[in-house]
Amino acid sequence: MVFSVTGINMQHQKILRITTQGKSLLKITSQVNAIVADSGIKTGLCNLFLRHTSASLIIQENADPDVLQDLENFFAKLVPEWENYIHSTEGPDDMPAHIRTVLTHSSEQIPISQGRLVLGTWQGIYLWEHRQHRHTRELVVHVMGE
Amino acid sequence: MVFSVTGINMQHQKILRITTQGKSLLKITSQVNAIVADSGIKTGLCNLFLRHTSASLIIQENADPDVLQDLENFFAKLVPEWENYIHSTEGPDDMPAHIRTVLTHSSEQIPISQGRLVLGTWQGIYLWEHRQHRHTRELVVHVMGE
Amino acid sequence: MVFSVTGINMQHQKILRITTQGKSLLKITSQVNAIVADSGIKTGLCNLFLRHTSASLIIQENADPDVLQDLENFFAKLVPEWENYIHSTEGPDDMPAHIRTVLTHSSEQIPISQGRLVLGTWQGIYLWEHRQHRHTRELVVHVMGE
Repeated sequence: MVFSVTGINMQHQKILRITTQGKSLLKITSQVNAIVADSGIKTGLCNLFLRHTSASLIIQENADPDVLQDLENFFAKLVPEWENYIHSTEGPDDMPAHIRTVLTHSSEQIPISQGRLVLGTWQGIYLWEHRQHRHTRELVVHVMGE
Repeated sequence: MVFSVTGINMQHQKILRITTQGKSLLKITSQVNAIVADSGIKTGLCNLFLRHTSASLIIQENADPDVLQDLENFFAKLVPEWENYIHSTEGPDDMPAHIRTVLTHSSEQIPISQGRLVLGTWQGIYLWEHRQHRHTRELVVHVMGE
Repeated sequence: MVFSVTGINMQHQKILRITTQGKSLLKITSQVNAIVADSGIKTGLCNLFLRHTSASLIIQENADPDVLQDLENFFAKLVPEWENYIHSTEGPDDMPAHIRTVLTHSSEQIPISQGRLVLGTWQGIYLWEHRQHRHTRELVVHVMGE
């Protein structure tokens, strides 16, 4: 049972710009851990916030890439592109991208201990691009602690 | 690349009471930004927490109302009211409302920069009422920062 | 309308180890409230983070156990075990467990007021085990405030 009690006196905020190559899950764990290391914060909380409504964040298995393909397949089937969406002027992949974002997460929160994210052994952080074409996405990384 | 480093010395907590008119997505962005402005906090994190299990929060497109209608239609189909739910004493819309809440979010976290939420251009914050009838919902707004 | 303004000068971090008995929703509200009480923090924010990719967190109705059974039934149907998943070496329940985790939450954030979580009357916090067999799960509880 780990138990740490400290003060809280710092916060760091940075915007990462990440270019995606169309529908895919992009692992960003090391980039986020690098910002946490830069901040100098040893104990605290890291908030990730994606400034978009057609891409999202998830925390998932970092080992077997088949898991990512199965996730993509499941969501493609759950939220099909050929539905009769009213909002269709931005292409057949836009409304499904909005729905997939709602079903997943615009933000993630991960505690920090000993200067690192307390992710489990098998956990990775992913930016999930839900549009067909490449986009540059802005991720706000906000770190608070001591 | 924006990078800000500050202290953290304030927190504000407020409960908003919002009356819904049955199933609908209610935009609350300006009310939340007003509380952030009132708090005087320039850099920090805003947490929104909804104290209910049959209504939820999402961050979604703030421009085309058709997106909201498509979201409503998709969830109505994904979580139908005519299923054989065991929990049915509170009406056919209650169990679907619980499921829709689980599939979306009871809380949202948004960083604050220069005294405003760092929402993207197209992002709005919505309270999603999943019950058929009007309800008064309590939203706790918690702001931390400096 | 409650409005509190305070400083912020403490953070507490603890890891809870919770053993599950296979697929089930385990109420952990009182364990989390006990840690909040131990921390001595009266106003603040509590972050819960689950260090796994095949179990998740939800906030749901704490009264009628039928709600929990309906949730389990809905997700079993939405994410069937007999699909042709590519990732199948860890058993038929593993890939569905990953998908169910993505559709729900790896973390929850709940404000604290007067030394207690500001949960609504009907809200409970649940750890949702998505695997068939028992597992020991690690939940990081991070409390910030004053």
